[in-house]
Amino acid sequence: MSKDKLKAVMPKDWRSICPITNTLDLLGDKWTLIIIRDLFLGKHTYSEFQGSPEGIPTNILAARLKRLLENDLIEKEAYQERPVRYAYSLTDKGKTLAPVVKEIVKWGLT
Amino acid sequence: MSKDKLKAVMPKDWRSICPITNTLDLLGDKWTLIIIRDLFLGKHTYSEFQGSPEGIPTNILAARLKRLLENDLIEKEAYQERPVRYAYSLTDKGKTLAPVVKEIVKWGLT
Repeated sequence: MSKDKLKAVMPKDWRSICPITNTLDLLGDKWTLIIIRDLFLGKHTYSEFQGSPEGIPTNILAARLKRLLENDLIEKEAYQERPVRYAYSLTDKGKTLAPVVKEIVKWGLT
Repeated sequence: MSKDKLKAVMPKDWRSICPITNTLDLLGDKWTLIIIRDLFLGKHTYSEFQGSPEGIPTNILAARLKRLLENDLIEKEAYQERPVRYAYSLTDKGKTLAPVVKEIVKWGLT
């Protein structure tokens, strides 16, 4: 298929059909995989995420959680009313990131 | 070790000692792993990188190549004089990223 034909059938917000590129559009920043790591480690709430040593700014945390929710990688459940507070956890789709996270850990340790 | 003691011995530009965080500080953006992918695919020059469908802007390409060089993940060799032009390739250290890239491809395809 030519580049132009590909562009015509590709979702408009995709940069290319490359699976690396599409993964980076979702996870390619300094924070998203840190949140995913925290979820794998059993953290669920804003205050737990913000307690991590990296000190994620609140606005970035909110934006990343929103994007992960929109892409069905995490889900939220209210654990408190007035003010309502949510606990976040990985969906089955989110949990499929385990091998990616594992390889990054292995690489980061070398 | 306490959080404060850790901070004292940690390199100043590190956000934490987590291997995921340190990897993200190097590779956590929308472009770096696309360049790494292109290098694995046998691309070596500015014009080859810029010919990829994602259309990386020149200033970002230059900045990412510089950071990859500084971290010994790639090396460069002049292949032309006046104007001097460089060909970039993965070092042995850079090639150790293969399993990370592979897992990201696998995940991106699901």
